[in-house]
Amino acid sequence: MSLFTRAVVATTAARPVERLITHTRAGRAVADRFVAGQSLRDGTEAAERLNRRRMTVSLDLLGEEVTDRSGAERAADEYLEALDAIAARGLTANISVKLTQLGLAIDPSLAAGAVDQLAKAAAEAGTTVTIDMEASAYTADTVDIYADAQSRHGNLGLCLQACLYRTPEDLDRLMPLGGHIRLCKGAYVEPPNIALQTGREIDAAFVRLLTVLMRSEGVRPAIATHDPVMIKMALDLARERRDGFEFQMLFGVRPDEQRRLATMGYDMRVYVPFGSAWYPYLTRRLAERPANVWFFVRALFGTG
Amino acid sequence: MSLFTRAVVATTAARPVERLITHTRAGRAVADRFVAGQSLRDGTEAAERLNRRRMTVSLDLLGEEVTDRSGAERAADEYLEALDAIAARGLTANISVKLTQLGLAIDPSLAAGAVDQLAKAAAEAGTTVTIDMEASAYTADTVDIYADAQSRHGNLGLCLQACLYRTPEDLDRLMPLGGHIRLCKGAYVEPPNIALQTGREIDAAFVRLLTVLMRSEGVRPAIATHDPVMIKMALDLARERRDGFEFQMLFGVRPDEQRRLATMGYDMRVYVPFGSAWYPYLTRRLAERPANVWFFVRALFGTG
Repeated sequence: MSLFTRAVVATTAARPVERLITHTRAGRAVADRFVAGQSLRDGTEAAERLNRRRMTVSLDLLGEEVTDRSGAERAADEYLEALDAIAARGLTANISVKLTQLGLAIDPSLAAGAVDQLAKAAAEAGTTVTIDMEASAYTADTVDIYADAQSRHGNLGLCLQACLYRTPEDLDRLMPLGGHIRLCKGAYVEPPNIALQTGREIDAAFVRLLTVLMRSEGVRPAIATHDPVMIKMALDLARERRDGFEFQMLFGVRPDEQRRLATMGYDMRVYVPFGSAWYPYLTRRLAERPANVWFFVRALFGTG
Repeated sequence: MSLFTRAVVATTAARPVERLITHTRAGRAVADRFVAGQSLRDGTEAAERLNRRRMTVSLDLLGEEVTDRSGAERAADEYLEALDAIAARGLTANISVKLTQLGLAIDPSLAAGAVDQLAKAAAEAGTTVTIDMEASAYTADTVDIYADAQSRHGNLGLCLQACLYRTPEDLDRLMPLGGHIRLCKGAYVEPPNIALQTGREIDAAFVRLLTVLMRSEGVRPAIATHDPVMIKMALDLARERRDGFEFQMLFGVRPDEQRRLATMGYDMRVYVPFGSAWYPYLTRRLAERPANVWFFVRALFGTG
């Protein structure tokens, strides 16, 4: 993990910093850039705008680490509403869910049941469910719940993180199940016995997994990176690929590059978070990219 | 290409610098580190020492860009002698040849004929021939001559350079022929229409090709790098590999790492150059690794 990431993680974990970011206009300005809004309506409107620009969407209801059953059930209900809205408005969109938001930390079967329910509803809405990957404490359960649900429903996908040592084996295990695999570098702070720590090593791991994914058949690669070197490599690997694949980028991050790839005819999916629980999401965005912190600092001093 | 590489290439191309390096004790000290000696005997003695340490060898008679037929024929004869010596002394070694040393720049069929002759002699000596890769002007001919010779003899290998745009296609074409593929990053200065220019892009290309090679069957990967990140990645990919593979490193470069890998039980082949025409070889070694230049500077000031 870089010094930069460490510094941002340590800083944003401090309560006064959280207050500063969540309670000032500067903080709101940053949130406005990376989050579509507080309500489902804000999310679907952002999705409509992106669809008009030939980009698909993954709707993400913000929230994670839910510690009570009612909170988990509420999140599942809100996702069902999101799927209804996708069908009703004819959006080209799916949903991205975090299993801790659906109760994984309370009881894995609670989260598994919600995934079942959402996969069925997504199938009725003609779309898919992507399971986000969270901190490494949840990786094993998340992979297992995904594998089980995907083998029964067939319309799911999972995010895998290049930084984790276990990921190459997870990928080999999951590819035969079809679905889609979202490959990212990894945005959580992990210890050296679990994850690679240096940028060069994580880059190498990302390329290795990207190569395997892009040379595979039957699984849809979703390449989730904003790194120009990795995008270029993906485009080069795409020349040999017959089946589909897509790029994925986050709402508000490199929007020009998102449009450029969409205009070139590539499938570009934008991850659109909405809801009120945006602080943990935002801190990961700040920690993973110096440019995002500068954006915040400029907003704080009114020069943004 | 990095500024460092540019600076070294520009400097070493200057005549006075060549005189300084080839005619001073400091220059000789550097050559002594990277070159086994002037004669075939020096080469085979180095090979014996390495074999005793459980490392295999590729003997390289220094010389390239030969411009007259007699020079090319002399080089082929010297390689035949090297193959005799390998058989006579029972060395675990093969030979590495540059096609411009065998007359490629004069007449491709001259080089192709010599490769034929060497492949036959190598088969009799129970060993193989690796064809080095040179500047991009020779890549197409070199790949063609290799493909033809390998499909007839079966005991050859070729070096491919990750930095070249054409390499992924070359690899896909050549893998079905078996043999061995030596993968390196590339040590020649190439323009941006032919080759990647930045370290991150070349790293990514190297990992992509390494992944394809290590997941292949029937071809023997020879991983020619001194970069710890790439070695670590190769070791990780090796866990899934059933067939053989080897590491390759240059005589005098990271000898501790060479021994470490050999001691761990990995196949480690050391590229052992010998002969009098060592200047172009040495300039590539200086240009590709800052540590090698510091070694030279220290030798120059008598602190090495």
